[in-house]
Amino acid sequence: MHKVLITTVPFGDKNRLPIDLLEAADIEYVINPIARKLKEEDLIQMISDFDVLIAGTENITDAVMAKASKLKLISRVGVGLDNVDLLAAERRGIRVSYTPDAPAPAVAEFSIGLMLALLRSVHVSNTQMHRGEWQRHFGRRIPEITIGIIGTGRIGGRVLRRLQAFGSPRILVNDIRPDKNIAPKLKLEWVGKEEIYRQADLISLHVPLTSQTKNMISNHELLMMKPDAMIINTSRGGIINESNLAEVLRNGHLSGAAIDVFDQEPYSGELAKIDRCLLTSHMGSMSIDCRTRMEIEATEEAIRFMTGQPLKGTVPKDEYEVQALRA
Amino acid sequence: MHKVLITTVPFGDKNRLPIDLLEAADIEYVINPIARKLKEEDLIQMISDFDVLIAGTENITDAVMAKASKLKLISRVGVGLDNVDLLAAERRGIRVSYTPDAPAPAVAEFSIGLMLALLRSVHVSNTQMHRGEWQRHFGRRIPEITIGIIGTGRIGGRVLRRLQAFGSPRILVNDIRPDKNIAPKLKLEWVGKEEIYRQADLISLHVPLTSQTKNMISNHELLMMKPDAMIINTSRGGIINESNLAEVLRNGHLSGAAIDVFDQEPYSGELAKIDRCLLTSHMGSMSIDCRTRMEIEATEEAIRFMTGQPLKGTVPKDEYEVQALRA
Repeated sequence: MHKVLITTVPFGDKNRLPIDLLEAADIEYVINPIARKLKEEDLIQMISDFDVLIAGTENITDAVMAKASKLKLISRVGVGLDNVDLLAAERRGIRVSYTPDAPAPAVAEFSIGLMLALLRSVHVSNTQMHRGEWQRHFGRRIPEITIGIIGTGRIGGRVLRRLQAFGSPRILVNDIRPDKNIAPKLKLEWVGKEEIYRQADLISLHVPLTSQTKNMISNHELLMMKPDAMIINTSRGGIINESNLAEVLRNGHLSGAAIDVFDQEPYSGELAKIDRCLLTSHMGSMSIDCRTRMEIEATEEAIRFMTGQPLKGTVPKDEYEVQALRA
Repeated sequence: MHKVLITTVPFGDKNRLPIDLLEAADIEYVINPIARKLKEEDLIQMISDFDVLIAGTENITDAVMAKASKLKLISRVGVGLDNVDLLAAERRGIRVSYTPDAPAPAVAEFSIGLMLALLRSVHVSNTQMHRGEWQRHFGRRIPEITIGIIGTGRIGGRVLRRLQAFGSPRILVNDIRPDKNIAPKLKLEWVGKEEIYRQADLISLHVPLTSQTKNMISNHELLMMKPDAMIINTSRGGIINESNLAEVLRNGHLSGAAIDVFDQEPYSGELAKIDRCLLTSHMGSMSIDCRTRMEIEATEEAIRFMTGQPLKGTVPKDEYEVQALRA
């Protein structure tokens, strides 16, 4: 009999359907007993007995897999694969699936929300008002600024299409695989990343975490940006160097930042001392509908595997190649 | 020689053009020396010497006008006229102009920003993160909910058109003069206000403050709303009864509120103690471009008056009728 370990948290919280699916299929499962993102050691302790992992963003390293002698499938709830050592999995005959489309609408809408909050200092005013201070902040509107989007895949493309209703900002875009038809109603300028750093008033990142994007935005890039530029990261922690960002913000550079993802989660660090840095707790994909869809898709994939049906969400070859390049 | 009193704050702050226009026309002006919203007594003290007022949202009552023997024009920076006693002005032969279109794009974009923040608990998470707490909140996306828009004029209409990019939410609308072509791409349901209170997940108000809308949303209406509904007010303080709102929020009703406008501004009150109540300091129209346009239009109108040219922004008859109805 197969056993499933569900490490992602929360799971089945707002909608029990993924749990019901497992129970209807009579599959034995254990939900993460620590109820927070697992560390490598936690997972090493826990994993030996399980055949299938329904996984979150915790690190699933070669060392973890070495202790997972029964493991045959990692079914990721979400799209990022930076936490899974795909080459180790391949070597050990462990298949990996994911749910690449499910989180995209939620993350895109969340990113637009962070843009509008930053542009109008909503977070700063809210903090001040709750302290009893009244200060009216000037802001800018989307059609008045230059927006830079780095990464125009599933999420960045949706961000662009939602921007279409806000008039005609100047939009600079960058992607390793430019798709010229991504947002037909907008006039996009495909440029290099450095041009985005230098010219954009607001930069939003929608790239995966890889060896190429790790610390992609460090001191050097931050200091290229306009003194009153703003930056948003809803993709993965580590793409912006956190301590560099805190340092430049402390020194008065950049008019704001919105950070949803962190090197270490749960996050507690120096950005929390900076009022104009809007912080959220990795909530980009946390709309009830998208989160539920992610959990259901990952669970259905696990059930397909355990009942001998063909898989539908296996990670494509090029994701393995990206990781091979870094090795 | 005419003298102008500019009461609105800020003025000429991000863009000096309105001040330059006055100086180029060789017009004597005084900018609000208190640098905050004036009270009736302040204005009574100040006004006797001036022919023209470039006005903000401070109350310009009959008692104020009684002391303003030279006053011939009130030129409002903005659209609301709740603060100007139009009938008293008419009786005293004081003309009133305003800038109805200039603030609308800024307020509409700001309102969408508050919607997205409320829907995803961005304000709550930001407060928690800055306190060192990590809690991932579930939220909802625009296409998953029922949105209620009360008031579909210059601002409400723009809110609707910006919503078009976010998929197809169910949208309930109410206005005293329904315009069926306001957002042709959306399927709008024109309903009574009570239906909006009972059915909407998120309600946004875009009506002027009049005797009809004063305390329009009090305990009775708030308690009609779904327990997890959200409400946004970027129009005028007083339309939602503030102490009623604080009371229902304290008792656990409603999942959030976003309030930009208050009965008394600067605001300090009990809403500031409620984390899920997002508060901003009357910033809806405070985008640099719209604020500058408002100030320039109101200044140009004042200059037209003082140089004997025909006025372009006089308040239409029906605004006087609305106030006559209440009298």
